[in-house]
Amino acid sequence: MRTRAAVAVEAGKPMEIMEVNLEGPKAGEVLVEIKATGLCHTDDFTLSGADPEGAFPAILGHEGAGVVLEVGPGVTSLEPGDHVIPLYTPECRQCEYCLNPKTNLCQSIRETQGKGVMPDGTSRFSMLDGTPILHYMGCSTFSNHTVLPEIALAKIRKDAPFDKVCYIGCGVTTGIGAVINTAKAEIGSRAIVFGLGGIGLNVIQGLRLAGADQIVGVDLNDDKAVMAKKFGMTDFVNPSKVKGDLVGHLVELTGGGADYTFDATGNVQVMRTALEAAHKGWGESIVIGVAPAGAEISTRPFQLVTGRVWKGTAFGGARGRTDVPKIVDWYMDGKIEIDPMITHTMPLDDINKGFELMHSGESIRSVVIY
Amino acid sequence: MRTRAAVAVEAGKPMEIMEVNLEGPKAGEVLVEIKATGLCHTDDFTLSGADPEGAFPAILGHEGAGVVLEVGPGVTSLEPGDHVIPLYTPECRQCEYCLNPKTNLCQSIRETQGKGVMPDGTSRFSMLDGTPILHYMGCSTFSNHTVLPEIALAKIRKDAPFDKVCYIGCGVTTGIGAVINTAKAEIGSRAIVFGLGGIGLNVIQGLRLAGADQIVGVDLNDDKAVMAKKFGMTDFVNPSKVKGDLVGHLVELTGGGADYTFDATGNVQVMRTALEAAHKGWGESIVIGVAPAGAEISTRPFQLVTGRVWKGTAFGGARGRTDVPKIVDWYMDGKIEIDPMITHTMPLDDINKGFELMHSGESIRSVVIY
Repeated sequence: MRTRAAVAVEAGKPMEIMEVNLEGPKAGEVLVEIKATGLCHTDDFTLSGADPEGAFPAILGHEGAGVVLEVGPGVTSLEPGDHVIPLYTPECRQCEYCLNPKTNLCQSIRETQGKGVMPDGTSRFSMLDGTPILHYMGCSTFSNHTVLPEIALAKIRKDAPFDKVCYIGCGVTTGIGAVINTAKAEIGSRAIVFGLGGIGLNVIQGLRLAGADQIVGVDLNDDKAVMAKKFGMTDFVNPSKVKGDLVGHLVELTGGGADYTFDATGNVQVMRTALEAAHKGWGESIVIGVAPAGAEISTRPFQLVTGRVWKGTAFGGARGRTDVPKIVDWYMDGKIEIDPMITHTMPLDDINKGFELMHSGESIRSVVIY
Repeated sequence: MRTRAAVAVEAGKPMEIMEVNLEGPKAGEVLVEIKATGLCHTDDFTLSGADPEGAFPAILGHEGAGVVLEVGPGVTSLEPGDHVIPLYTPECRQCEYCLNPKTNLCQSIRETQGKGVMPDGTSRFSMLDGTPILHYMGCSTFSNHTVLPEIALAKIRKDAPFDKVCYIGCGVTTGIGAVINTAKAEIGSRAIVFGLGGIGLNVIQGLRLAGADQIVGVDLNDDKAVMAKKFGMTDFVNPSKVKGDLVGHLVELTGGGADYTFDATGNVQVMRTALEAAHKGWGESIVIGVAPAGAEISTRPFQLVTGRVWKGTAFGGARGRTDVPKIVDWYMDGKIEIDPMITHTMPLDDINKGFELMHSGESIRSVVIY
C-alpha cells in the first residue's frame, strides 16, 4: 500500500513529507493506522545527527496511537479494529529479560530494532523509487500507516482519545514509571525533579500520584514553574538564582537531601547534582535523560559508600503491553492529567514546525494529528 | 589509669608503643579492656597521611574485641564482665538514621567521632606529659584499654575467642554484610568480586552463605586464588592474563554479566569495571573499597539507563549492636569461617611489623593479641 509519512532523509535536515510504499504485515506483525503521534526529544536527537546509532533515510516517531487494520499470520492477541499504542520497548513475555521481574528491557527483537528493520531483517517501508526506508525504534509513528511486531503493541480501551493517549507511548509512561516502577517512591517521600519539560512534568505528577510530601522542581526557566505547580510541584528552584552551592541549597530545602531525585535533562553535570542532592544513607537518584554521545557521569565514590544509590530508567521501567493500558485507564479515570501538556497540535505537513516549537521552548508537547 | 598503646604520633611514621593516660568513662561511656585487634587497611590509610581527615597524635585501630571493665553513669545495656566488639558505626536506635530501615549510618555521634573525641567534645587519652591524644573512628583499639560510648559497643557471647571475632568488628561484617544487607543477593545469583584481600574473601563467603551459583574472583595476584577457592570462589580471573576487554570477558564468563558485583579494591577504575560487568537490566554493583582522596568514579549514564545500579556500603550495611552478635553466632556455629584469614598474630610491640606484612601482601589479616 501507499501512505504518507515524514521521512528523515538525512541528518540535520528537515523531514520531507512524501508518499511512501508500505508492505503488509508478515508473520507476527501488525499493520496499524496511526491516528496521532507526539514529537519527542529523542526523535529530534536522532534527526539532528547527534545520535551515533542514527541511520537514514528513516521514518522517525515513537509516541503514537492508532487502530489495527490488518494482522499477519500467527498474530493472536490483536485483531482489526483494536486500538493500540506502539511500544519502542516491546514485551514478548518469553525472553530472559521479560521473565526477570527486575527489568522491563525485553531483548527479543532488540538487535533488528536497533538496525531499523523488522525482526526478519527487512524494512516494510520504501520510497516510491524503491529505495528502502528504515524503521525507527521499531515504531515509525511519523507515518500515517506503519507495521510493528505484535509484541510491540499495547492494546488499549477504545474510548481513549488518540491525540492525548499517544503521549503515553513515551513521555507520560517514562516520567510516571520512573517514580512508580524504578524509584518505587513511598507515600510521604521528598523528591527533586531536574528539568521541567515533558518528562519532568510527568515525574512530578507521578510523585503526586505516589503521595510525595515535597516535590521540588529545578529549571533554569522560571516560566516552567507555572505548569509544574499545576502538576504538583511544591517548591521551585532556579539554579541561576541560587547563591553558592546548588547541592547545599537543595539539601537544606529538603531537610537533609531528597529521598528520590530525578534527572530529566540529559545533562551529565545535572545528573551529578541530582545524585549528590539525594539524602545520605538512603537517597536514590534516577537518570532518565539521554546524554550526548560520549558524555560521562562522575562523582566521588564516597557518595555511594555513604548510602546514595545511582540508577537509571528506560520507558519508566514499564512493561508496555501490561502497564500502558493501565496508564490509559488512569488518564480516563482522571488520576493523571495529559491535556494541559499537549500545548500544540498540527497536521503531518507541519511536523517540522513542531520541532521548531520544541527548540524554542514554546511547546511542552506537540502532537501531529493525522 | 595508665595503659599501653600504639600511638600514631604523626603521619607517615611508624606508630610508637608507649604508656598513655586514660580517663575513666563519663556518662554514657564504657571502659573496655581490648583483648585483640585486627590491623585494617583503613588504619594504614590514615597512618600514611593520605586520609584528608586524619589528625595526629591519635590511637588508631577499629577492629577489636574485649571485656567491659567499668561503665559510666546512665549506661544500662552493659555491665562489667560483658564481652564486646567496638563499633565504628554506632547504633543509637534513636536518630533519624537508626529509625530509617534503609540505612545503618547512625549519625548521633558522627560529628565528635570525626573529630577524634568523645561525644562531650574531649578525649580520654593523653600522653604522660599531658598532651591530648585523639581517638580514632570512635574505637582506638590499638590501646590495651579504651573508652567508648555505650551505643558503640556490641555485646557478644562470652565463649567467642577474642583473637578471631575481633575481625567481625570490621572486615568480616563489611564483606558479608555487603552481600546480605546491601546487595541482598538471592539464592542462585551470579557475582563477581574484585580484590581478594581481607574484605573480598568475606564477600565471597557471604555469597556462599547466600547461596550464589557463581562466584567469580578477580585479582592481579594468582596466589590469592588459593584461599578464595576455599571460601567459595568458583572462577578466578587475573586481569593481567585476559586478552582484550576485561568487561567483555567477565560478561561472557557470567552469561551476560553478573547479578551483583563488588569492588573491594578502592581503585576507581576497578569500580567502573565492576559496574559495567554487571548484567544489563538488573545488575547491581556495590562499592566497598575506600578510594584515594579526590578520586572519582565515572561511567556513561547509558550504563544506568539500561538497568545497572550503582551502590555503596559502609560496615556492610550492618547495624552493629543488632547484627554483630548474630555474625559472632554464625562463626561459632560454623556457618562462616574466620580462622584461615587470620594469617599472623603478634603482640602490640610488633604492630608496625603487622603493617609491613600488609604492605608486602604476605598477610590477609594480622591480629594483635594483648
